[in-house]
Amino acid sequence: MGKVYVVGIGPGNREGMTLQAVSAIRESTVIAGYTRYLELIPDLCQGKRIISTPMTGEAKRCRMALQAAQEGATVAMVCSGDAGVYGMAGLLYELSGEFAPVEIEPVPGVTAACSGAALLGAPLGHDFAVISLSDLLTPWELIEKRLDAAAKADFCICLYNPASKSRPDHLKRACEVLLRSRRPENAAGVVRNIGREGQSAQTMTLGELSSYPADMFTTVFVGNTQTKIVDGKLVTPRGYGNV
Amino acid sequence: MGKVYVVGIGPGNREGMTLQAVSAIRESTVIAGYTRYLELIPDLCQGKRIISTPMTGEAKRCRMALQAAQEGATVAMVCSGDAGVYGMAGLLYELSGEFAPVEIEPVPGVTAACSGAALLGAPLGHDFAVISLSDLLTPWELIEKRLDAAAKADFCICLYNPASKSRPDHLKRACEVLLRSRRPENAAGVVRNIGREGQSAQTMTLGELSSYPADMFTTVFVGNTQTKIVDGKLVTPRGYGNV
Repeated sequence: MGKVYVVGIGPGNREGMTLQAVSAIRESTVIAGYTRYLELIPDLCQGKRIISTPMTGEAKRCRMALQAAQEGATVAMVCSGDAGVYGMAGLLYELSGEFAPVEIEPVPGVTAACSGAALLGAPLGHDFAVISLSDLLTPWELIEKRLDAAAKADFCICLYNPASKSRPDHLKRACEVLLRSRRPENAAGVVRNIGREGQSAQTMTLGELSSYPADMFTTVFVGNTQTKIVDGKLVTPRGYGNV
Repeated sequence: MGKVYVVGIGPGNREGMTLQAVSAIRESTVIAGYTRYLELIPDLCQGKRIISTPMTGEAKRCRMALQAAQEGATVAMVCSGDAGVYGMAGLLYELSGEFAPVEIEPVPGVTAACSGAALLGAPLGHDFAVISLSDLLTPWELIEKRLDAAAKADFCICLYNPASKSRPDHLKRACEVLLRSRRPENAAGVVRNIGREGQSAQTMTLGELSSYPADMFTTVFVGNTQTKIVDGKLVTPRGYGNV
């Protein structure tokens, strides 16, 4: 029986990969993934069959991977960050019914909430919510509802996909929702190009965040009401008492 | 100037560590951490000065690590999972003001939300909330408020610290809150001893979860209203439309 590893490779640099992720890719004879991610691991792809499709071809890519596994191959489906957080693991399981039984094994990785947080300090030191601002597969009304709920219940918040060319104003709209219950002074921060060339991190207030020009390489953090800036770092205390 | 790496070592097995985490510990001459975590990496600790305190001695351990760094050492403060998610990174920043300036560098790791999800399938494939059920540093009323908000806004939910000897009924109480707005049939799952001896994963309904005997080695997952069981795996679709 063939097998598909769904491998989270972390933020992008080799150092951010787990030993398990490296092993799973080494063991595989077929590598599937978005072209951009495969370019991050050229040596691990060398000499292997590559299944690559553009960003929007996720379902097709999953079917090609499952097809190869059905024919007996061991396939590594490469995702950035973690394999399960807005990754391909769920889609593979959903589409697997179209094929003869193959084993699917997710290999977890460091998701941008964690790798990005590390660059800013410790913004996710207490309960947190991860929300994608992409409305390609989710109604914007539900995204707004989640933003509002997370802000009111004082969650730390990490926003994925804060903007793209087709939706340049999503971060601004999200901040407007958060500002219904949070003060403009609420601590926030952004990271760009985590683990890649041009990596940067910047703290700011929620008020400033609403006019920040985010792009698809940006991950956004909004602290809870206790989050503070300590020596330039975004720090959320572990609790609501004294340490 | 001394330095403290705050290192997330992932779930517990060597394969779950990132290359960066291994390097940071190798580079350090002093290793600090909860005894139980240091026992997971005996070879990396060999020949180094060890600062170890019991579970509840976090602030003391951080101060000892900062003290060693102030004296010029490179210290690795070892956390399980990620360094910033209920980890020591925030506390180190908060306490650092008591010492001469030292560099603090968080090294992110795979948190239990991601490593546990991988064992169950793909329960966190859409927006999710991470909530700790420990009320040692957080009022229970706020924990309830977050559970209620997350359930109502249809987040996938991952629960850390679902129970301990002193609070055996927290998971049951949490489920009662979730069941105010979610059906008892809502898909859920638990994992135990992720990446360690006795590792296990089990899917169930939210109704069943409320009487599950969780302990401090358990991580709990509650899907959103779209989450389903596919071939024994917990799978949350990427969106609310068709794939």
